Amino acid sequence: MINLLNDYNTTAHPRIIEALKEAEGQRYIGYGLDPATTEAADAVRKLTGRENADVHFMIGGTFTNLTAISAFLRPHEAVIAPASAHINVHETGAIELTGHKILTGDFGAFSPRETLRGKVNGKIRAEEVSAIVRAHTDEHMVRPKMVLISQTSEMGTVYTRAELTALREVCDEFGLYLYADGARLGAAISSGVCDMTITEFAAYPDAFYVGGTKNGLLFGEALVINNPALMADFRFYTKQRGGLLAKGFLLGLQFRAILEGGLYFELAKRANEMAGLLTDGLKKAGVCFLTETESNQVFLYADAETLKRLEENILFERWGGEEEKGTPIRFVTSWQTTPEEVLAVLGLF
Amino acid sequence: MINLLNDYNTTAHPRIIEALKEAEGQRYIGYGLDPATTEAADAVRKLTGRENADVHFMIGGTFTNLTAISAFLRPHEAVIAPASAHINVHETGAIELTGHKILTGDFGAFSPRETLRGKVNGKIRAEEVSAIVRAHTDEHMVRPKMVLISQTSEMGTVYTRAELTALREVCDEFGLYLYADGARLGAAISSGVCDMTITEFAAYPDAFYVGGTKNGLLFGEALVINNPALMADFRFYTKQRGGLLAKGFLLGLQFRAILEGGLYFELAKRANEMAGLLTDGLKKAGVCFLTETESNQVFLYADAETLKRLEENILFERWGGEEEKGTPIRFVTSWQTTPEEVLAVLGLF
Amino acid sequence: MINLLNDYNTTAHPRIIEALKEAEGQRYIGYGLDPATTEAADAVRKLTGRENADVHFMIGGTFTNLTAISAFLRPHEAVIAPASAHINVHETGAIELTGHKILTGDFGAFSPRETLRGKVNGKIRAEEVSAIVRAHTDEHMVRPKMVLISQTSEMGTVYTRAELTALREVCDEFGLYLYADGARLGAAISSGVCDMTITEFAAYPDAFYVGGTKNGLLFGEALVINNPALMADFRFYTKQRGGLLAKGFLLGLQFRAILEGGLYFELAKRANEMAGLLTDGLKKAGVCFLTETESNQVFLYADAETLKRLEENILFERWGGEEEKGTPIRFVTSWQTTPEEVLAVLGLF
Amino acid sequence: MINLLNDYNTTAHPRIIEALKEAEGQRYIGYGLDPATTEAADAVRKLTGRENADVHFMIGGTFTNLTAISAFLRPHEAVIAPASAHINVHETGAIELTGHKILTGDFGAFSPRETLRGKVNGKIRAEEVSAIVRAHTDEHMVRPKMVLISQTSEMGTVYTRAELTALREVCDEFGLYLYADGARLGAAISSGVCDMTITEFAAYPDAFYVGGTKNGLLFGEALVINNPALMADFRFYTKQRGGLLAKGFLLGLQFRAILEGGLYFELAKRANEMAGLLTDGLKKAGVCFLTETESNQVFLYADAETLKRLEENILFERWGGEEEKGTPIRFVTSWQTTPEEVLAVLGLF
Repeated sequence: MINLLNDYNTTAHPRIIEALKEAEGQRYIGYGLDPATTEAADAVRKLTGRENADVHFMIGGTFTNLTAISAFLRPHEAVIAPASAHINVHETGAIELTGHKILTGDFGAFSPRETLRGKVNGKIRAEEVSAIVRAHTDEHMVRPKMVLISQTSEMGTVYTRAELTALREVCDEFGLYLYADGARLGAAISSGVCDMTITEFAAYPDAFYVGGTKNGLLFGEALVINNPALMADFRFYTKQRGGLLAKGFLLGLQFRAILEGGLYFELAKRANEMAGLLTDGLKKAGVCFLTETESNQVFLYADAETLKRLEENILFERWGGEEEKGTPIRFVTSWQTTPEEVLAVLGLF
Repeated sequence: MINLLNDYNTTAHPRIIEALKEAEGQRYIGYGLDPATTEAADAVRKLTGRENADVHFMIGGTFTNLTAISAFLRPHEAVIAPASAHINVHETGAIELTGHKILTGDFGAFSPRETLRGKVNGKIRAEEVSAIVRAHTDEHMVRPKMVLISQTSEMGTVYTRAELTALREVCDEFGLYLYADGARLGAAISSGVCDMTITEFAAYPDAFYVGGTKNGLLFGEALVINNPALMADFRFYTKQRGGLLAKGFLLGLQFRAILEGGLYFELAKRANEMAGLLTDGLKKAGVCFLTETESNQVFLYADAETLKRLEENILFERWGGEEEKGTPIRFVTSWQTTPEEVLAVLGLF
Repeated sequence: MINLLNDYNTTAHPRIIEALKEAEGQRYIGYGLDPATTEAADAVRKLTGRENADVHFMIGGTFTNLTAISAFLRPHEAVIAPASAHINVHETGAIELTGHKILTGDFGAFSPRETLRGKVNGKIRAEEVSAIVRAHTDEHMVRPKMVLISQTSEMGTVYTRAELTALREVCDEFGLYLYADGARLGAAISSGVCDMTITEFAAYPDAFYVGGTKNGLLFGEALVINNPALMADFRFYTKQRGGLLAKGFLLGLQFRAILEGGLYFELAKRANEMAGLLTDGLKKAGVCFLTETESNQVFLYADAETLKRLEENILFERWGGEEEKGTPIRFVTSWQTTPEEVLAVLGLF
Repeated sequence: MINLLNDYNTTAHPRIIEALKEAEGQRYIGYGLDPATTEAADAVRKLTGRENADVHFMIGGTFTNLTAISAFLRPHEAVIAPASAHINVHETGAIELTGHKILTGDFGAFSPRETLRGKVNGKIRAEEVSAIVRAHTDEHMVRPKMVLISQTSEMGTVYTRAELTALREVCDEFGLYLYADGARLGAAISSGVCDMTITEFAAYPDAFYVGGTKNGLLFGEALVINNPALMADFRFYTKQRGGLLAKGFLLGLQFRAILEGGLYFELAKRANEMAGLLTDGLKKAGVCFLTETESNQVFLYADAETLKRLEENILFERWGGEEEKGTPIRFVTSWQTTPEEVLAVLGLF
């Protein structure tokens, strides 16, 4: 069955498995202190142009977010995020479990599910940040201290250079950290609407991660800490929350492999192209969209009959309950999606 | 200077100080295991008609809320509350610090400050609860498990019998606890719009507290736990968070005194009457209100000139930034507010 | 019945109640921002000679400890304390609940109860601190960052100038904070074996508190923060944990009263004198002690027959199970203990 | 260089990599809801004879311990463990970060490092558990609610049937859960001194895990929950702490592979045999041991000269500072250790 459910439904790109196979029999120091991990960290620094950054390889996205946010904030400090943010909706209260409140923008949403869409397609605006900060005046309220964005956002949209500049400015004005959840950073940078290179993007946030799980790895994300004030003792925090992998070299081996020869962006680009192909076809078929397709996620409405046909033939996710325009659904393409699969899906409309 | 800032700006009612004076020289067992505390707990059970309830005397409202909520919930469980709830806005993220997410109704609010008002004057409706619960479907999201209301609400409004019945039903439908923050429970029950006695009210929630700090005590709140499933080990939780007062008998002595001879409701009624007097006068003066005055809080708009005059002469709080109708402000009356003070305030309009 | 159970079994010294009575009718700003609290803070600074210190009035000892320790430490940092420390044995895991490990000295103790005694009478030595720090080498272990002492210790003993100097030096060597639980600081400074004034003592720790609950107040402790690095945002932490009292002025009024005219040390001295009188008599009666009496706590062994007689006539606490020398018990004297009571107790031996 | 540093210094057994390679191109449902994971869970249930148990595949040992312990306990409940337990010494306070105190046995140890040895070679005895529980009497102390053992222990020793029976009995007497950290469960069951099969062992604890990381997998542990009272909502807790792997099927594929054809115990047995060979040779060389070798860890003393020679030629860990008998060191063998390597090591003595 064609799988448009998500971008993490296969083991890994063959070169990743191969890299592990080649390492067979070799002995490594544990906990990421091995040479392969050092080389991978250098590769991440080179890729992002952040030569003085700290790089930590982490086991997954939720773990990276909760470890980084709780490491960077003091107990009374809060994180501002779009209401649709993964940390706000789909991480089972992981951030609150570490003690921190999430203050949300995208005001006006009716339900957590519907907030997935948001007023501005999953993005938070500098004005919203400013309004939230100004509303927090004394010790009876939390202190906003970080803005979290996702690049791409939960709606597959991409922050532009102008939007990031405005966010960076409001962060600097109020002394906030800017943190970017980069689970799909490859898709963002490879997007046709993205007006930045990865090195240009990487200069904005105080910290961000380069997602691996959703772009060809077995698992793993590379956290990049730009701000020296946030670097201290990070390995303690990772260990303390159970994510300092004994065989840390597994992450080093994988990232070293995917960053060789441009494979990382090659995979992201392919995923985006398949989403583009799909979107073009759907447009021709007169389908109604929730938002513009900007990366590897396509959000559309399906009428009852189409929905039935789709659910009998392919895997995908509903994105809320029925509305006037139909039931909102999400298609996610990946580097493994083929043009033939796209055509087969289009044939169902 | 006339103080309409809040209802906790004096030491205590004379009978409270007297009760402490009478106890001079007497020796008490510590940590609330003394006879005075036992008598006070019996008095609370009698007052509320909850003869099988557990009663715990707590040091303050925020402490009561955070201790009760964290005691009652498992780590992945969340509390549903109006966006304007004290726990959501004015407790510095105390609930999140204990690990729990707050899911808010009053959808559509723009900023934390403005949410203080809310669509339904600080109250959450059963339909909102239902919508929030239905949107939480699996282990990637928190599990809603409690509804928190404040009686009176942060906007001084009072939940009616019909509203509480609807909330109780939705809680029962979804297996949620109903918890009532009763910092101003006296004002609520004494309100002209309240269609319940305290015993009728007390039958609805799984737990609630009878507020003392804002109604004549030096400090202290009486937590009443109706639901036997929530009773276990509560003293451990109180101690563990630093609120099991060594001289617990101080709370027992105070509550025993205030519950004697109807003093508790007498004070609350007086506070409400002063707010009523004030509201009547303001209406005559053509003032614009944010919400109907239902208890001892009055929310109104003041134009720039009036605002200036008020700030030069009396103490009160602004309730957000300037709007079309003027700047929203709050007057709080207490059992110590006098008709003369009310008249003096009215003279400023 | 004579009460030697603890030093917090009566309401408060008459001057405290009087101070509250005098304040009747006066209006105060909330949350400790009032003039009485400011004056009390100045009085604490003057008493301790710490003119640049931050002073915060807290609701109780456990609350002060857990709020201060969690405010001062980062998540992976641990506190070193004697095994007998109140935070380790008698605060229901309050420190661990805030996320921090306690590393204990007094090695060799058999059970939590027996550790109440400790090898060095409840005190931790600089060598133990040093040994613990040296054993913690990397990110797989917590990082020791604070040493907690109690002055007096849980065994009523008093740290000397030489001991404090050694502890301060080891703290400086390893970059640790020194924190002193001063629940019975009055008794410590008033002790005959104390070779320091309160201002001399106050110069050692990064933070400490001057205990009120056990020395004449209704409730309240004055936290003194010497180290500027630990001062930031402390009111947020107090609020967030539920201890920023609405009527904060109650603490200010009490501390202002007890620090006037030397009352604080007068009460502590009286308590110590009664313990001295008791100890002298018990020595004559041939009683066996667990430790030297240095302040207002007396630890002794009672044989089965004496124990029975004591329990029929007075209130006190057992301090562990039966041993060779008898059952260990504790007598606590207070400023309300009279010479007549002491004689009556001695008559039972 | 010969690596006796640990048993997690290579990628994985070839059959594991092969299993991943075979899965190439296949599409899987995320988060462990796929058929491979279901089959692996069945294989774990079959292996352990716990047909009604819940099985969860986890990312690593520390993560498993902290998630399970915090899921199973209420906030005021504590875990009893040997002082040498991994959770007490080498998990950076992970358990305390979740809010729970660890109460330790192995009383008498001097430092965290030295506690690695313990009085009874890293094991806790039923009498110690009983003593700890009896010392915790009221709400001023934590409530002991779980006993944690490691099988094998941190000293490589193996709990016998008699020891486990005694621990189970004391747990039942006091209503405690018994939890077994099985990071090296394969080595324990394969040990010559083990008088139980894995199904016999698996009947004792309320929950335990079958370690994969240290016995041939890339990563992964299989948590088995026997006690139905501990099963509820476990996936929420795993997600909430960041360990519900998007590609959960990676754990299923690996465990399915290692449990086929007895590979799991084959690998563990080989590791033990190499440790046995090493121990025999060292005994002949007159070496002094810290403890009997019972599984794949060998603890011995090395004199200064030998230590120097060893450190120039092989990788291993020191296990504390110099003592009378020499410097304590640890050799760990694995399924990849060869007889030739063992002989080479012996040649250095």
